[in-house]
Amino acid sequence: MQNHRVLLLAHGSSDPRWCETFEKLAGPSLQAIPGAAIAYMELSQPSLSEEIARAARDGVSGVTVLPLFLAAGRHLRQDVPAMLEKLSTEHGIDIELAAPIGEHPLLGEAIQHIVEERLDNDNPR
Amino acid sequence: MQNHRVLLLAHGSSDPRWCETFEKLAGPSLQAIPGAAIAYMELSQPSLSEEIARAARDGVSGVTVLPLFLAAGRHLRQDVPAMLEKLSTEHGIDIELAAPIGEHPLLGEAIQHIVEERLDNDNPR
Repeated sequence: MQNHRVLLLAHGSSDPRWCETFEKLAGPSLQAIPGAAIAYMELSQPSLSEEIARAARDGVSGVTVLPLFLAAGRHLRQDVPAMLEKLSTEHGIDIELAAPIGEHPLLGEAIQHIVEERLDNDNPR
Repeated sequence: MQNHRVLLLAHGSSDPRWCETFEKLAGPSLQAIPGAAIAYMELSQPSLSEEIARAARDGVSGVTVLPLFLAAGRHLRQDVPAMLEKLSTEHGIDIELAAPIGEHPLLGEAIQHIVEERLDNDNPR
């Protein structure tokens, strides 16, 4: 039994191509971290509440929810904390909301490399 | 005169903290790439149309718009291309819309490192 689980939280969309991109983005993390899963805030499956319920059924006692969001807006400041508080009480499970990925310096560095690669492709040196 | 310019496109928000995160995310790119600037689709300043107008005034003939978005939804598939077509005609400037950063494999790898670092902090080895 794994006592702790990480859920990568994405917004969700009615467009399946949007979700495919998030599944690719989460791929390296899901492969590297046992039990890690993706969960959607709305519009897509599996939902955050489904994944929290599954964690509880699996006997997990603590969940870290790590948002695949570039920045914290209303969703991460209000909606998601309210959802998590309710789910935590409902399932008797500790849930911690981490900072969105975009607040980590590594993201800005990755973006710099992507922009430079793109410019090199446009204008070969 | 720089003949080509890159604009990093963010969505925009009424929450100034949201924009601060994007300015930090764009920081390494803006420092490394002469002329690069951030532009917002809506709700925040400077707007995409202001930045395209400024590029035209500066004598730039081509702009690459690189979206600081994790995935392409309706905005990047419909709204932004329509805005760019109009701005391109209006200012007589070539504008290319690049893929969003989230479609680059480097992003998935960066996310993996961020998740692992976070788990290490939660559960020191």
